[in-house]
Amino acid sequence: MSLFHGLSAFPITPTDTDGQIISDQLGLLMTRLVTAKVDSIGLLGSTGGYAYLDRSQRAAAIRAAVDYARGRVPIIAGVGALRTDDAVNLARDAAQNGADGVLLAPVSYTPLTEEEVAHHFVAVADATDLPLCIYNNPSTTHFNFSLDLLRRLSQVDNILAVKMPLPQTMDLAADLARLREGLPDDFFIGYSGDWGCANALLAGADSWFSVIGGLLPEPTMKLATAARNGDSADVQRINDCFQPLWTLFQEFGSLRVVYAAAKLLKLTDAKPHLPLLPLGTIDENRILTALGTVDQL
Amino acid sequence: MSLFHGLSAFPITPTDTDGQIISDQLGLLMTRLVTAKVDSIGLLGSTGGYAYLDRSQRAAAIRAAVDYARGRVPIIAGVGALRTDDAVNLARDAAQNGADGVLLAPVSYTPLTEEEVAHHFVAVADATDLPLCIYNNPSTTHFNFSLDLLRRLSQVDNILAVKMPLPQTMDLAADLARLREGLPDDFFIGYSGDWGCANALLAGADSWFSVIGGLLPEPTMKLATAARNGDSADVQRINDCFQPLWTLFQEFGSLRVVYAAAKLLKLTDAKPHLPLLPLGTIDENRILTALGTVDQL
Repeated sequence: MSLFHGLSAFPITPTDTDGQIISDQLGLLMTRLVTAKVDSIGLLGSTGGYAYLDRSQRAAAIRAAVDYARGRVPIIAGVGALRTDDAVNLARDAAQNGADGVLLAPVSYTPLTEEEVAHHFVAVADATDLPLCIYNNPSTTHFNFSLDLLRRLSQVDNILAVKMPLPQTMDLAADLARLREGLPDDFFIGYSGDWGCANALLAGADSWFSVIGGLLPEPTMKLATAARNGDSADVQRINDCFQPLWTLFQEFGSLRVVYAAAKLLKLTDAKPHLPLLPLGTIDENRILTALGTVDQL
Repeated sequence: MSLFHGLSAFPITPTDTDGQIISDQLGLLMTRLVTAKVDSIGLLGSTGGYAYLDRSQRAAAIRAAVDYARGRVPIIAGVGALRTDDAVNLARDAAQNGADGVLLAPVSYTPLTEEEVAHHFVAVADATDLPLCIYNNPSTTHFNFSLDLLRRLSQVDNILAVKMPLPQTMDLAADLARLREGLPDDFFIGYSGDWGCANALLAGADSWFSVIGGLLPEPTMKLATAARNGDSADVQRINDCFQPLWTLFQEFGSLRVVYAAAKLLKLTDAKPHLPLLPLGTIDENRILTALGTVDQL
């Protein structure tokens, strides 16, 4: 089974206010993911706050996660950075510290051209033997991959997968058909955007890159498994239990919600990195109610 | 006269491929700005590539620029960063290295809320006695300041100015009227987006934050002076000479164009920071023609 198949769970990275990793709290989250047998762990994704951590902090997070996983679940490490040389160094660090694959987003300040993103991705892919997944996340990177660019990058030996945003139309079957037609047969296509991803799996996507899976891996695995079994009635039933959480994800951004939820579950007292602010008590109460609905599963 | 009045010229920051400042080439650019008597120098703006340089590189750029300016033109230093603690440190560095003011953009990865941006700005303003200009640049930060948020921030002692994007309607008089009505009388309102800024000055804006002013300060001062004298016929005439450059700015982004133009003018051989790519020969030829049109002034 490929690294880029099934449920990839993206935990937060608990840190102190300076960005230093709180290793035992990361371990607590990792243990839950290993126990639930998620297919892979997406460390240092957007949820893992990679953009807010420096090179040494990111290396420390990978070392800690690899130590906790002990080979039981593969680890995909986010290596995105504004500068190409930084992203190259991060990819080398990920390999050296034992990650199994890398996830690369075209982080931007000055808006990037297709040619610039192509060069950036080839430079990073060339710097490592690890399999690489393209992280297409326009809501944070403000770059949207064309099918043509995905096709170009899919020709690079170790670029094997793409993590797509949900299509605006929410017509996942049509989006998948468009991508499958333009990309090699063995290229892995997955989605992020938890509220639509069980339906993406039902429609034939290879993988679900999941924020909630990083925090609540057991119920998320139930939803992913129902979808991979093609049981649309069960998907509907489980998705209904998650719906209050999906609503909060869309209202506050999933990152702020999972930080608050992790605190409510007493898994960590870490806060998001400033300027990101923790949610307040009123919102926490709504999250508590939403977690209760998932607990009914 | 305030720091945030008139033509603020934003030069590129010549660096080698590792991001180390090429001091003598920065000096060459600085000398042109001092000679042309621009009202201020916007060091380490988006054009100055601040987002791609680390803390020590940014401190080195400020030290070099302050040395070259020798108090003849005030220097406004960009201190934007993703993390609040980094931006706070950069503001302190700017003060310590002799900058006269700071420019702060709400750089984002996870999209920011108004409350988060408010906290971020207050933290940075509190960290320095230097006057601060709000850098509202949604095309790179993906955050757009509401009038309400600008009003809140204008209450902070040393937050004195805002650098606005051109309004989508291009109705600068209406945009200025809206801002003036909501903000204190002594708050400075300026614009960036070179192709519309002479008209912004004509409409009564306090300042023009200019990319082209960082490279071609003499003709840009002519355009700014005509606008500040209310001579709309002369503004029209001079703007027409700049039009081929404005067209290229809108096509390629002003940053890529001024790097190519600075190379063509033999002022620097520095390239933009990867993943940003230098323009090719065909585009350079168009830039050469556009520079020739400005030379006719």
